[in-house]
Amino acid sequence: MTTPSYDELATHYTRLHRFQHLASIAGWDQAANMPPKGNEARAAALAELAALMHRMRIDTTLADRLSRAEQEPLSQHQRANLREMRRDWHLANALPTELVQRRQLATSRCEHAWRSLRPANDWAGFVEHWKPVLAIAREEAALLSQRSGLSKYDALMDRFEPGMTSAQVDRVFGAVRQWLPGLIRRVTDKQSHEEVVEPVGPFALDAQRALCAQVMRRLGFDFDAGRLDTSTHPFSGGVPEDVRLTTRYAEGQFLQALMGTVHETGHGCYEQNRPRDWLGQPVSEARSMAIHESQSLSFEMQLGGHPGFARVLAPMLAQAFGPQAAFEPANLHRLLTRVTRGLIRVDADEVTYPAHVILRYEIERPLVEGEIEPEDVPRLWDAKMAELLGLDTRGDLKDGPMQDVHWSESLFGYFPCYSLGAMYAAQWFAAMRRSLPELDARIGAGDWGPVFDWLRDRIWSQASRWPTDELAIRASGEALNPAYFKAHLEARYLG
Amino acid sequence: MTTPSYDELATHYTRLHRFQHLASIAGWDQAANMPPKGNEARAAALAELAALMHRMRIDTTLADRLSRAEQEPLSQHQRANLREMRRDWHLANALPTELVQRRQLATSRCEHAWRSLRPANDWAGFVEHWKPVLAIAREEAALLSQRSGLSKYDALMDRFEPGMTSAQVDRVFGAVRQWLPGLIRRVTDKQSHEEVVEPVGPFALDAQRALCAQVMRRLGFDFDAGRLDTSTHPFSGGVPEDVRLTTRYAEGQFLQALMGTVHETGHGCYEQNRPRDWLGQPVSEARSMAIHESQSLSFEMQLGGHPGFARVLAPMLAQAFGPQAAFEPANLHRLLTRVTRGLIRVDADEVTYPAHVILRYEIERPLVEGEIEPEDVPRLWDAKMAELLGLDTRGDLKDGPMQDVHWSESLFGYFPCYSLGAMYAAQWFAAMRRSLPELDARIGAGDWGPVFDWLRDRIWSQASRWPTDELAIRASGEALNPAYFKAHLEARYLG
Repeated sequence: MTTPSYDELATHYTRLHRFQHLASIAGWDQAANMPPKGNEARAAALAELAALMHRMRIDTTLADRLSRAEQEPLSQHQRANLREMRRDWHLANALPTELVQRRQLATSRCEHAWRSLRPANDWAGFVEHWKPVLAIAREEAALLSQRSGLSKYDALMDRFEPGMTSAQVDRVFGAVRQWLPGLIRRVTDKQSHEEVVEPVGPFALDAQRALCAQVMRRLGFDFDAGRLDTSTHPFSGGVPEDVRLTTRYAEGQFLQALMGTVHETGHGCYEQNRPRDWLGQPVSEARSMAIHESQSLSFEMQLGGHPGFARVLAPMLAQAFGPQAAFEPANLHRLLTRVTRGLIRVDADEVTYPAHVILRYEIERPLVEGEIEPEDVPRLWDAKMAELLGLDTRGDLKDGPMQDVHWSESLFGYFPCYSLGAMYAAQWFAAMRRSLPELDARIGAGDWGPVFDWLRDRIWSQASRWPTDELAIRASGEALNPAYFKAHLEARYLG
Repeated sequence: MTTPSYDELATHYTRLHRFQHLASIAGWDQAANMPPKGNEARAAALAELAALMHRMRIDTTLADRLSRAEQEPLSQHQRANLREMRRDWHLANALPTELVQRRQLATSRCEHAWRSLRPANDWAGFVEHWKPVLAIAREEAALLSQRSGLSKYDALMDRFEPGMTSAQVDRVFGAVRQWLPGLIRRVTDKQSHEEVVEPVGPFALDAQRALCAQVMRRLGFDFDAGRLDTSTHPFSGGVPEDVRLTTRYAEGQFLQALMGTVHETGHGCYEQNRPRDWLGQPVSEARSMAIHESQSLSFEMQLGGHPGFARVLAPMLAQAFGPQAAFEPANLHRLLTRVTRGLIRVDADEVTYPAHVILRYEIERPLVEGEIEPEDVPRLWDAKMAELLGLDTRGDLKDGPMQDVHWSESLFGYFPCYSLGAMYAAQWFAAMRRSLPELDARIGAGDWGPVFDWLRDRIWSQASRWPTDELAIRASGEALNPAYFKAHLEARYLG
């Protein structure tokens, strides 16, 4: 029984994967290493590669091969691979190559300008670089929407979260919007009576770097297949065989760099543990970005906010920075679960975090649909930050709509994945507890192995073998159920 | 007057240049950053890209376009560009794409294995990885030789040094072989009577890094368009807009890292100052590797061995490491011009350096021609090190034939460029002195501007506008004349 068309497709996708390897590494380098004068040449090189890869993805021989392969005697795994190839082919064929190349150039330029415009709080300068990015995103949304029948925003979101719609996001986020402000109030009231000792800096950057690496090792990250470096905006990049995580350090505090690192390590472990035998094939790709964020948040929030995490971390901190009262495990746990209304999404605790995401979702969706323009963003931002978190953000664009890299990079439709990921993470831990009642005792005793084993078996190794709902059902017994997230927050913060 | 065929070629080469950008950055990353488990995937990705670029270079439409462009009304610069395109087309068409891809895979693997086999002194293990590289190099040499009519070794050397032949190298090196051992003896005799105070370590790595960057700035390197990092084997990589230099540090001494950095900075300044308007076109490429080495050696040897260099460096050293008797300028100059018979080429002084190159040339040439095999190399190495430098290298493969990365990377035919470069560098400085009699006084006073100006005007900005001989004649009044090198050594070391 031969599968000639399938085999040709597999070879084609292996080649594409190799080019994607170079795009990932050069993209990581652009963020982590590249000096400023290198950007125009890098942008042109990445755009050339993006165009090449796009031409490969719309190769006219693919349609026929995909149809013929569907008639071939494929294994279940191969059939899943073919499903993912077909999805990729649909996404790619909606767009002309010249748009892909233009998008790459515009986002490279906007991201690079953002690096200096953000610290300068220069919103007008940013908008100038952002408008071309948005114009291209709207073109892209219209083309993807024509092909798929989804709304424009849904068509963009579908790139990151296949099958997710704004109707579902509206339902889920609409419910959160109901209970979140009350929960934040109750939690902050409760915490206002707790004594928390603050760590006293400065915290030497070398010691912080060594600490982050030590914690990454404790979380199972393989440094023979990855690195930790510094960039303006922390991210997880590279390739499964060579995962490139970044964080950012400040001498005055260490928790942001550390917990940012723990977050990226969740992404990194997912990537490092994708099925080795299938690397290069679409079926080996991470399932979706919400599932990806469910891994980073399983590490950062589910595990990082557990008393057992503080217990393991405490002696590491004393060793890195010298002993302090703040490093006592119970105090450290209070620090790691403290709820504060703040300006910065990536530094937010898990209780206020959904507010940041809902705000962005409610702005980027009408932005993509053409209902509002970049000039409207600061006003909306200020209003929603006041409404959702009671914060005054007027005039502070730097730590407002310019704080994230996503909009510069045309990642419209990505933000919802963070909160969907937080919900999936709560659902995973609830399932773990059902199958292993002593889970909390084990984590509390510093044995995190059961968590890694569960995630490896049910998420990491499964990659894109199943559609998202089926993956969730196989892993946890049901599709996305946001009730676990609410229950988790209430148990941890009000219990 | 239109030039449609030329314009099409220029567009084609711009695309090729963008892919070369990615190959350079990913190649640099492979040497400077990549963790060990990343190598197989990187090797596959780079081989895929090498194959793509090779297919572009042998595109069947090129032959016609090149012929038609030759009939078009081109400027002198465009005509030079066309000459370089034709040369590239000839080189590429001699080789099948599958060989190019195989070579990339074999060299990536061999280089990566070499990193751990060298410190283990594991020659047998190395030979196992090296044999496929050598076999491919011999195939390549045979194919290039068939096309060009050059001998096999000359055909490989021509890739790096267009127009150079082993007949000329034999003449030049043959003469050096006559006078070099006597010169080394006289110089070491003379220096044996000099008092030299040794610097006392340890030298903190952070201070070394900062010192190297400071000296690079003093030499005109633009850190907005480049970086300095660490790798097993120092090299200059990246792209003109983003030059990536590497060096290697050891706590026990700083002069090797520093002078290695000065060497790479010469390469880096050449790259950063290639003509901006022509970047992406073959005419903007560095003229040849001997000319490239003439820049690194102008910095490292001509300038680095000048009393004026020690005078500028002395206060920097005192600031970096605290004051020491060894940092007194006259003593520092003696340290920087000390002649010692040593095992390591990259650490060699300019007097013994040609011995290292001649030895490699005399081994790699018969190796490529198939007259000897890898198994013969250690014996020949030992004999030639004894003969040329009076050193016993038996059993020390690590600091013997495994010391350089070149043979792992199939850079057969490269080594002669180092000594040809040293000769060109001496010739450039002789020409500078003729046109500016106060040159040494200026350098002595810390004013190195005239050196940089001369090199920028006559070498860097000229790139590949002229064939090598014509470049040398326009710059210095004559083609390569090794007499200047001998005169330079005698004046500096016996004067």
